[in-house]
Amino acid sequence: MNEKKEPARPEARLPKGLFDTPAEEIRATERMLATIRGVFESYGFEPLDTPAIEYSDALGKFLPDQDRPNEGVFSFKDDDEQWLSLRYDLTAPLARYVAENYQTLPKPFRRYQTGPVWRNEKPGPGRFRQFTQFDADTVGASSVAADAELCMLAADTLEALGVPRGQYVVKVNNRRVLDGLLELIGLGDEADAGKKLAVLRAVDKLDRLGIEGVAALLGKGRKDESGDFTKGAELDDKQALRVISFLRTAAETFAQISAGSYLPQDFKAADDEDYYLIDEMLSSFHESQTMTAALERVEDIRKHVRAVGYGMDRIRFDPSVVRGLEYYTGPVFEAELLSPIVDERGQQIRLGSVVSGGRYDGLVERFTGEKVPATGISIGVSRLLFGLKALGALSSETAQGPVVVLVLDCDRIADYQRMTKTLRDAGIRAELYLGDAGLKAQMKYADKRRALCVVIQGGDEKAKGEVQIKDLALGSTLTSIKDRDAYLKKQAEAQFSVPETELVKAVRNVLDRAKA
Amino acid sequence: MNEKKEPARPEARLPKGLFDTPAEEIRATERMLATIRGVFESYGFEPLDTPAIEYSDALGKFLPDQDRPNEGVFSFKDDDEQWLSLRYDLTAPLARYVAENYQTLPKPFRRYQTGPVWRNEKPGPGRFRQFTQFDADTVGASSVAADAELCMLAADTLEALGVPRGQYVVKVNNRRVLDGLLELIGLGDEADAGKKLAVLRAVDKLDRLGIEGVAALLGKGRKDESGDFTKGAELDDKQALRVISFLRTAAETFAQISAGSYLPQDFKAADDEDYYLIDEMLSSFHESQTMTAALERVEDIRKHVRAVGYGMDRIRFDPSVVRGLEYYTGPVFEAELLSPIVDERGQQIRLGSVVSGGRYDGLVERFTGEKVPATGISIGVSRLLFGLKALGALSSETAQGPVVVLVLDCDRIADYQRMTKTLRDAGIRAELYLGDAGLKAQMKYADKRRALCVVIQGGDEKAKGEVQIKDLALGSTLTSIKDRDAYLKKQAEAQFSVPETELVKAVRNVLDRAKA
Repeated sequence: MNEKKEPARPEARLPKGLFDTPAEEIRATERMLATIRGVFESYGFEPLDTPAIEYSDALGKFLPDQDRPNEGVFSFKDDDEQWLSLRYDLTAPLARYVAENYQTLPKPFRRYQTGPVWRNEKPGPGRFRQFTQFDADTVGASSVAADAELCMLAADTLEALGVPRGQYVVKVNNRRVLDGLLELIGLGDEADAGKKLAVLRAVDKLDRLGIEGVAALLGKGRKDESGDFTKGAELDDKQALRVISFLRTAAETFAQISAGSYLPQDFKAADDEDYYLIDEMLSSFHESQTMTAALERVEDIRKHVRAVGYGMDRIRFDPSVVRGLEYYTGPVFEAELLSPIVDERGQQIRLGSVVSGGRYDGLVERFTGEKVPATGISIGVSRLLFGLKALGALSSETAQGPVVVLVLDCDRIADYQRMTKTLRDAGIRAELYLGDAGLKAQMKYADKRRALCVVIQGGDEKAKGEVQIKDLALGSTLTSIKDRDAYLKKQAEAQFSVPETELVKAVRNVLDRAKA
Repeated sequence: MNEKKEPARPEARLPKGLFDTPAEEIRATERMLATIRGVFESYGFEPLDTPAIEYSDALGKFLPDQDRPNEGVFSFKDDDEQWLSLRYDLTAPLARYVAENYQTLPKPFRRYQTGPVWRNEKPGPGRFRQFTQFDADTVGASSVAADAELCMLAADTLEALGVPRGQYVVKVNNRRVLDGLLELIGLGDEADAGKKLAVLRAVDKLDRLGIEGVAALLGKGRKDESGDFTKGAELDDKQALRVISFLRTAAETFAQISAGSYLPQDFKAADDEDYYLIDEMLSSFHESQTMTAALERVEDIRKHVRAVGYGMDRIRFDPSVVRGLEYYTGPVFEAELLSPIVDERGQQIRLGSVVSGGRYDGLVERFTGEKVPATGISIGVSRLLFGLKALGALSSETAQGPVVVLVLDCDRIADYQRMTKTLRDAGIRAELYLGDAGLKAQMKYADKRRALCVVIQGGDEKAKGEVQIKDLALGSTLTSIKDRDAYLKKQAEAQFSVPETELVKAVRNVLDRAKA
């Protein structure tokens, strides 16, 4: 037998880690983006868009935790054999843009940008291969004020989005604080890069795993609940102890402060726990110049934001903040929501940081050789949207569907289209039923579209110059009415005829009634 | 010599055909998208987003005029060796989405979507490798009303965007009209695919090249102004003549109508030139059943839109409309702006169609094997924006920059930040100068940012509890004043001091003055 097969049909499916976005989520995202845009604009940032595709060498390789050979980026060759990549963030393209247009830009250059970015990650729960970021950056400013401003911007944005003060925190650290720690345990050399990374990854997991978990990861390694083993940094006991005591400083200092047993060295300047913590760390780690300088920079940020009126309830020092992207050179920030977040199945989940950022003084220099200091933050739009929904901070009003004009007589479809247009011209969202099903299916369609009412004109109504209006919201309440007179009255309100000339007025009444 | 070189710096540049979008263009685009969204929503379409990346086989190969081996699409392999592509339009992903979710969707399914698409084309002037589309589609409706509605939607949208009636036209044709023509000249077989494509490409160029140019392309070929030769379809004279006479029908019918020499067969139904043209073509090409059926479908659309009140000044039959995408199966539409468009160098340019679309009844069936009729339109957002700007239809108001608070004393930067925040909290867009340059450079920065005014507080003002406000708009007019008293008066208005407590009020006065 040599039967010819039909060509195989493609399967209608998306690659893993990629998702369609339904109407309600798009509408919620649009509202959210408008709010963020408003706050960013009020700070004086200007919009910029860059394309999704860049030369791979222009983007560079700065992604953390690469478990894939192509380093987490989607790449492909152009016709001239040069490698192109989809952007994995909005910061690397900004550096390319600034380097390319440096002469003509106002300096500092302050821009915001929103758009999708792509990561070629192993897909999994909560791991997307396309997601939206919303960034603000100040390029050409080495000032602490620029870093401090971004922390305040993060706080203001979260509050504008409806997260109450106290239910989020913006955490500040400095990469060099951790560099200092690594130097102190003898990991200062380039040769120790692998071990350093393992230590930083362990520290980064403090929130999730607690001190015990971090301790395991600093040593031989750790087996998680599912039995998977993560290899540790293999520090010796003395090294590990130093890292642990570093992480304990914050918790212990705060505990001593609340117990009243902490004696600050300088009563006048000391206005909050962060001050004491920085002070305590400065004395505990005074032998590291790297850490001392970094802590002083953190203190500068702290002083600045406090002077502008942002207290510990909004912006706080946290020495365990790491941030994975490799281009950060100093201050790093991240904001998280503090209230417990519950997923659809009622399980409490770790949302992670919803805003993150830091200073990257070397990214423009990569191109030009000239020092151009820069700092920025990035909002994870989808993750924040999820968090806002879970917190109830986002009004989740469901958009009403259009008024649906039904088709009873196929030959008169232009008449129905004209009625639809009449409604539309009066500012009422309206559509003509465009399928070829019967009346019952059309009513079901209107329900599915969440129409508040439908417009019907059969032969009888047409003869009388009338249209019938059916209030679907009211109609759906009819079955619950027991009393016959009340039922008939409601039924008459839910379905009634008016002269065609009064179509707009009658429909508007029904829509107003539903709103009330 | 074996000197070690520094690692080569990447060049800060974009791949050809890709562009950054500056602030003003983003703002204009946002306004435009909001208007389009409003019109599409009023018609009852619902938003949907799909990711940029899809399986290549799900997108299919429907792009016209492929001059590249990879058929105009950016593609790359996933880790499991399956081919992925960046979407080249929003229609192919919609078909995948509908096939994947068919059971749960309302039918017909009406969605709009906007976003970037990518074409791996040979870059050149006006040819972009990333551009934004804004689509509306009705899936699951075979009705002429669905096609007609999209033509009306295109017209309404252009008018909502400020294009006056008469300065645009929505042109309607049916692919099968052209199929009928090809059959009539003996090119009905699959084997003639190449020749057919060449004929269609020639017809498609009628607007640009005129009848002469098309005639050349139907024959041996054509040399353009630059000397480049395009190979022709190599029709024989009889075939070519038939195509030419087909294209002439429209022009000649209209000419006869205006000369009063045309005698319509049916006075009653004949309400416009399109009616006569369709009628004329029905009799000229009556031997082609394919064309007859297609013309009747065009007539159905014509009748429908006329009945709803859309005349020849908005929607018109044009038998030369081809549309390149290979998935179209029947009616095709395109809208263009009629006023001459002039580029930055004052040269008149052909903008091409700003909206295009058609019916694609086979695209969902590719996946499911079940017939799911569908029709849609796509707005070329960047091209339309360019056209609207050239027509002056888009208000090109330049956004004002923020109020800039200058830094005179670095040690008091937190104070300046606090002033900035005071302005912001009062709803005034304001930013702190974050660079480290002197006063003169700061003033230049404020100019470059288009700030209307700056706020200054040096030691003297601080001592008196005052701030100085400098009105940059007014200040820039000073040099033109000859009269000394007038000059001094204006100068006093342009730069003045107020108590710090009156900062907001004073700045607001300056901003209001500039608006007036």
